[in-house]
Amino acid sequence: MIKNITDYETVSLDEGRGALAIIDQTRLPGSFEILYLTKLEDIHRAIRSLQVRGAPAIGVAAAIGLYLAALEIDSAEYEVFYGRFKAASDYLASSRPTAVNLFWALRRMEETARQNCALPVPRIKELLRAEAIAIHDEDIGVCRAIGEHGLSLIKDGDGILTHCNAGWLATVKYGTALAPIYIGRMKGYSFRVFTCETRPLLQGARLSSLEMSSIGADTTLICDSMASQVMKNGWVQAVFVGCDRLAANGDACNKIGTSGLAIIAKHYGVPFYVCAPTSTIDLSAKSAEDIVIEERPPEEITEMWFKERMAPEGVKVYNPAFDCADAALVTAVITERGIVRPPFGKNLAALFQERKI
Amino acid sequence: MIKNITDYETVSLDEGRGALAIIDQTRLPGSFEILYLTKLEDIHRAIRSLQVRGAPAIGVAAAIGLYLAALEIDSAEYEVFYGRFKAASDYLASSRPTAVNLFWALRRMEETARQNCALPVPRIKELLRAEAIAIHDEDIGVCRAIGEHGLSLIKDGDGILTHCNAGWLATVKYGTALAPIYIGRMKGYSFRVFTCETRPLLQGARLSSLEMSSIGADTTLICDSMASQVMKNGWVQAVFVGCDRLAANGDACNKIGTSGLAIIAKHYGVPFYVCAPTSTIDLSAKSAEDIVIEERPPEEITEMWFKERMAPEGVKVYNPAFDCADAALVTAVITERGIVRPPFGKNLAALFQERKI
Repeated sequence: MIKNITDYETVSLDEGRGALAIIDQTRLPGSFEILYLTKLEDIHRAIRSLQVRGAPAIGVAAAIGLYLAALEIDSAEYEVFYGRFKAASDYLASSRPTAVNLFWALRRMEETARQNCALPVPRIKELLRAEAIAIHDEDIGVCRAIGEHGLSLIKDGDGILTHCNAGWLATVKYGTALAPIYIGRMKGYSFRVFTCETRPLLQGARLSSLEMSSIGADTTLICDSMASQVMKNGWVQAVFVGCDRLAANGDACNKIGTSGLAIIAKHYGVPFYVCAPTSTIDLSAKSAEDIVIEERPPEEITEMWFKERMAPEGVKVYNPAFDCADAALVTAVITERGIVRPPFGKNLAALFQERKI
Repeated sequence: MIKNITDYETVSLDEGRGALAIIDQTRLPGSFEILYLTKLEDIHRAIRSLQVRGAPAIGVAAAIGLYLAALEIDSAEYEVFYGRFKAASDYLASSRPTAVNLFWALRRMEETARQNCALPVPRIKELLRAEAIAIHDEDIGVCRAIGEHGLSLIKDGDGILTHCNAGWLATVKYGTALAPIYIGRMKGYSFRVFTCETRPLLQGARLSSLEMSSIGADTTLICDSMASQVMKNGWVQAVFVGCDRLAANGDACNKIGTSGLAIIAKHYGVPFYVCAPTSTIDLSAKSAEDIVIEERPPEEITEMWFKERMAPEGVKVYNPAFDCADAALVTAVITERGIVRPPFGKNLAALFQERKI
């Protein structure tokens, strides 16, 4: 009934339609629909409402969205053009606060415009198109590289536990935390995958389970609260999670539940790997304390998905969308440039210094 | 709209109707309904389907159910009577495997019959009625005592986190893990209560949140995966959970998620208290390894409560209803006879030896 997710890119530029094309993730796994978004407001809403989600995918969607917004600006005068372009960028930046890739992608686009301010506006628009496409294409390469590095840490037959969805649907393709499984399967490995359902929005149940079972991986869905029992049973050789923002000290901000999972993995001696494109690393955040955690509406917990309200009227609800695993609980950070181990403060900084040389 | 839960006993003998009266917990919080069950099959199904749940409440329901079954046996001959009585008891025992109170209550009823085998059957039935009522009444006293002991461990204004429902609705009244809050409020204390929603069956969202908000406690509902963040925020001074079976070494079997919560509490230095009537302590189980963990149907995770299926068709699901917190993670066990601290092996056994003197 459902199309095979891996036949599609999660997010792409459809130039024929002049649109951002995304798989609507709020409809999965029940129905598969591609949305073609042309208006800035619709792209903002798609990010805000999680029709497109996952730090890398949000970055790509924002870059393409900003390029489409640039096309709509009819002034040939740079100052007017840039003023409206920057306003569009700031508007997209307001869609979600935690994932740093959003800001990183918008900044790349802004810099492209600024560095070429001497060129005619139509030429700047061409360069913005090239930059958006580069951000899109690079994401694929980054995810493949993370997959290769991650695969070196596990062996055929291992049990892998993941939280939320840092898979194909969180990126253009392949994913970050699930990339080692995709790459491994291409090489003939098989893994036993445990997907935490990930309350309240069930990205693990709806998206990761869908991805993994659609490629024929041995997939077992559990509730978030069952991860401890699964590890106690000895079924898990490694935990792989994605990352929405990695602080300079290695504190890893990711879907709510990540910090508890990291504590539990440490207790059982299971390695805890954070898969983070370098675009996710925010050296300006010294630690988790510098990261804003998005709080989302109570109804996501009490009503969404349910036939009827599952909590008494009037009860208070705390709904943080993310939390941060302390760096001390992270075994290694897997980036496209290689595997980074503690001490993270030094080794993450080195990752960027090497690049500059 | 909903009646105040605390105006009712969760489980009781309605002699006018010749029925076991229970609050149907599968309908809460949306609607409040009292079920009057007379047939053994209906009582078995009510336990199996969680219309009545919570280790102490199951014990009381089973005792009353077995008394009602005894009334139906029309033979005046002890051997015939006891054969059918024992068959009814075995049938009720098959309803759920993990909570030991079920077996404890049925054993008390069986012993009452056996110890009085020389008496006429009508007299045995009277004694069974008295025993069932004693089990019911004792539960109230036990919960009050646990509440008093638990209250001595916390202070006015503390943040208390609980998992699942070990409250009023898990017992005849007051509860075990929530009893300190009920007793404390009678004395003018107020607490900030955090209820973990408790997937998949949402007893925390549906039942504990309902109880706590109905008595006006400052109640905040969270997803299970948020407990770590709530503790990291410094909002929790103690975790209180119930218990379905406590092994001789202090391993505490309780609702799935309890072991992870205990690991997380230890990480943050938050005391982890297990509230367990002595009827929940099973000295014949040396450790968690001797306890059978009930696995329940996949649909509880993938479909139940939801408007539509939230996982891809065909995905495997692991749905253990319970897990066990290692004794090393338990700060203290709170029983009606007092607070038991490590070493649990020695101190739990002493609890029973004292009783015999």
